[in-house]
Amino acid sequence: MAKVVCVLYDDPVDGYPKTYARDDLPRIERYPDGQTLPTPRGLDFQPGALLGSVSGELGLRQYLEANGHTLVVTSSKDGPDSVLERELHDAEVVISQPFWPAYLTAERIARAPKLKLALTAGIGSDHVDLQAAIDRGITVAEVTFCNSISVSEHVVMMILGLVRNYIPSYQWVVKGGWNIADCVARSYDVEGMHVGTVAAGRIGLAVLRRLKPFDMHLHYFDRHRLPEAVEKELNLTWHPTVEDMVEVCDVVTINCPLHPETENLFDAGMLARMKRGAYLVNTARGKICDRTAVAKALEDGQLAGYAGDVWFPQPPPADHPWRSMPHHGMTPHISGTSLSAQARYAAGTREILECWFEGRPIRDEYLIVDGGKLAGVGARSYSAGNATGGSEEAAKFKKAV
Amino acid sequence: MAKVVCVLYDDPVDGYPKTYARDDLPRIERYPDGQTLPTPRGLDFQPGALLGSVSGELGLRQYLEANGHTLVVTSSKDGPDSVLERELHDAEVVISQPFWPAYLTAERIARAPKLKLALTAGIGSDHVDLQAAIDRGITVAEVTFCNSISVSEHVVMMILGLVRNYIPSYQWVVKGGWNIADCVARSYDVEGMHVGTVAAGRIGLAVLRRLKPFDMHLHYFDRHRLPEAVEKELNLTWHPTVEDMVEVCDVVTINCPLHPETENLFDAGMLARMKRGAYLVNTARGKICDRTAVAKALEDGQLAGYAGDVWFPQPPPADHPWRSMPHHGMTPHISGTSLSAQARYAAGTREILECWFEGRPIRDEYLIVDGGKLAGVGARSYSAGNATGGSEEAAKFKKAV
Repeated sequence: MAKVVCVLYDDPVDGYPKTYARDDLPRIERYPDGQTLPTPRGLDFQPGALLGSVSGELGLRQYLEANGHTLVVTSSKDGPDSVLERELHDAEVVISQPFWPAYLTAERIARAPKLKLALTAGIGSDHVDLQAAIDRGITVAEVTFCNSISVSEHVVMMILGLVRNYIPSYQWVVKGGWNIADCVARSYDVEGMHVGTVAAGRIGLAVLRRLKPFDMHLHYFDRHRLPEAVEKELNLTWHPTVEDMVEVCDVVTINCPLHPETENLFDAGMLARMKRGAYLVNTARGKICDRTAVAKALEDGQLAGYAGDVWFPQPPPADHPWRSMPHHGMTPHISGTSLSAQARYAAGTREILECWFEGRPIRDEYLIVDGGKLAGVGARSYSAGNATGGSEEAAKFKKAV
Repeated sequence: MAKVVCVLYDDPVDGYPKTYARDDLPRIERYPDGQTLPTPRGLDFQPGALLGSVSGELGLRQYLEANGHTLVVTSSKDGPDSVLERELHDAEVVISQPFWPAYLTAERIARAPKLKLALTAGIGSDHVDLQAAIDRGITVAEVTFCNSISVSEHVVMMILGLVRNYIPSYQWVVKGGWNIADCVARSYDVEGMHVGTVAAGRIGLAVLRRLKPFDMHLHYFDRHRLPEAVEKELNLTWHPTVEDMVEVCDVVTINCPLHPETENLFDAGMLARMKRGAYLVNTARGKICDRTAVAKALEDGQLAGYAGDVWFPQPPPADHPWRSMPHHGMTPHISGTSLSAQARYAAGTREILECWFEGRPIRDEYLIVDGGKLAGVGARSYSAGNATGGSEEAAKFKKAV
C-alpha cells in the first residue's frame, strides 16, 4: 500500500463557488491529433467542478482509500517546515502541478528513498530534476495534451489583448471616464502582422491554426520541421534559429518546454533583436525569459507589451517586477487549469494511477522519464539535465492579499 | 465653398504620444470580399498616427483649406451650447463617428438648412435620423468595411476574455496575490462551445471565420441566408429567428446594425431564453440591449459574462450600470478605432469628400441614404425610421476622471 502526496493550490480565498457559473462542460472526444481523452476505469467527480485546489483533491480520495492507499493533500510545498518536506521520506508517489509546482530537486529526491513516481497533473515536468529522476530510476509522467488547447486559447486571447490594448481600455470604463484617445493611442489590429512561435508542438501548432484566419503571417522555429502539408496549409515560414525568426516578427509566442537549452533564451540580447514595438507572450515557463530584461524592454519601448502566465518562482513574490511593469497583461499560472482542463487532467491523473497500481503500462505519450532514461514524449520534448530549483525563493513569498 | 463640421473625440488626457508604440502599420491591399481599401487622390497624414481625436482632424485640414472650404473641428456635440449646435445653421457637411456620435436628430436637421452630407468616419449611421435625412434629401455615407475586421478581432478577444476569466485573473497579479482557485473557478475553454452571431454581415462572418479553428460549433441568424458554400465550409447552423438561436448557444455575439427592429432586441425576455451561464458580447450598438436587464442577468447568474464596447448614450454617465455590473469586460467604444482602423477611415473620409466636392459619384458601397431613399449598402442593412436620440442624456455626462 502506497503513500501518495498530492500538492495542489489553495482553495479560493473568495469562497468556494456555491453554484458554478455554468451547468456543464462541452463534450470533447479526442484531441486534434486523434489521441483519445483520458480513459480511467472510474471517475468520482463531476466535470466542471473545481478539482485542482486542495479541497478538490483531483477527485482521487475515494479511489485511493478504497484501494488501501494513503492520500496526503496539501498546498504546503516550500521550505523545510512544509508538509511536502515532512511527508517526502515515505512517499511513493508525488503529484504536483505546474501552476503550483512541488519543486523536486536532487536534494529532495535524495530525501525521498521510496519515491517511484513523480506525476504532473498537467503538462510540463521541469519542476522535477529529470537528471536526478533518471539516475534514481524514478518514473516521471504527465497528462500530455490535457490542457494544450486551453493554453493555446490563452495565448490568442493575450495576443489580441496586448495588441488591441484591452485591459487599459477596460480600466477607463471602471474609472468612470470615456477617454477613447487614451485607449487607442496604443491599440492596433493584428491583421497583417507577423507572428512567430518558438516551438510548434501541440500548443504552438494550435496557436498557429487559431491565428490563421486573422490574416496574420505565420512563422515558427522548431528543432523538428512540421510536415510539408501543414506548412503549406497554414502558409508557414520556418526559421532555422529563434534569432532569425524574432527579427521579422511583430508578435512572438513561446511554446517550448523549459530545459537547459531554453532557460534564459529571451535575455537582453534576444530582446534587442526583436522589432521595436513587438509583443511577447510566454505561457511556457517563466525561466525562459530574463525577468529584469523583459521589464526594462517594456520601460524602454523596445517591447510594446508582454503577457503570459508563467513566472519564476511560482508563486512569485509580491515585488516581482512582472506584477508592476508597464504594458503587461499577466495572469497567475492559470492558462492550463480552466475548469475544462481540470476535468481532463484529473481524469488523466486517475488513469495513470490506475495503471501504476494495477501494473498496467502507462500510455507512452504520458511518459517523460521511465526505466532510467527519457522516454515517450519526454524523449522528444525534453533534454536531460536540470532547470529546476526555486523552492527557496518561493518559500520567501508572503501573501500580500 | 462649403463649411465642414467635424465632430471628433477629445485628445488624450494622458498626453499625446511622444513616440508611438510601433513604427508602422502592416500593409493591407483589400478587404476579404475583394473591395479595395480607400483610394483618395491625396493623403496628408502618416498611417499609424492618432487621427480620430480633435488634434488629428482626420488629416483633413490641409486638403479642405487648400480647396477653399472651412473646417470646424470640435468634440463639443451635446446640449444647446455645444459647438456643433452653434455651427449647424450653415454647415454643408457634418462628419462624426460612432465612437463619439454627433446625434443628428430630426430637430437638429431642421436647424441645419444647408446640410447636404452626413458622413460617418467609421461604420454605423444610426446616430443620424435616417427618416429625416430621407425626407430632406440629405446624403448619408459611411466608410464601409474600414473597421469591420478591427471589430471582429475585438469580439473574439472579448469572448476569450470572458470565458477564460481574463481580467479578474490579471487583477490578482496586480494586487500581489496568487489566488489560482479564485481565478479559475469561473474559467472555461471555448473549445466545444456553441457560439452564435446575430447577423452574419461583414463583422459577423469575420467573427465566425476566426472562431472556426477554436473547434466551436458555429450558429447564425440573419435575414439574408449566407451562400451554401460558406455554410458548408464553416459548418454553420442557420436559425430563422434570434430566439431559436440563443436557446442553444453558450456564447452570443451581436453584429447587426441598430434600427427600429433591433432596438431593445435583447430585453429581459430574450435574456431569459438564453442558456444559464451564457456569455453575451455586443460590439454593435448599446441600444440593442436593455441596460437594466443585462445588469440584472449578470447579478442573477443567468449571464456568466457580458462584454462589448457600445453604450447608450455615448459617452455614458459615470453611474451607467454597465460600468460596475459584475462579470463584465467592457471597453469604451474603441473596437473600430484602433490606429490601424483610423488610417483606413481617415482615408475613406477623404475619398468621400473628394468625390463630393469634385462632383464624382461616391462609391455605392459607402452610401446609406442618397436621393431621398435608402441606397447602396444602406438598402441592405438598414430600415427606414429612427433609432437615434440620446444627445440630451449625453449632455448630462460630467467626466468623473
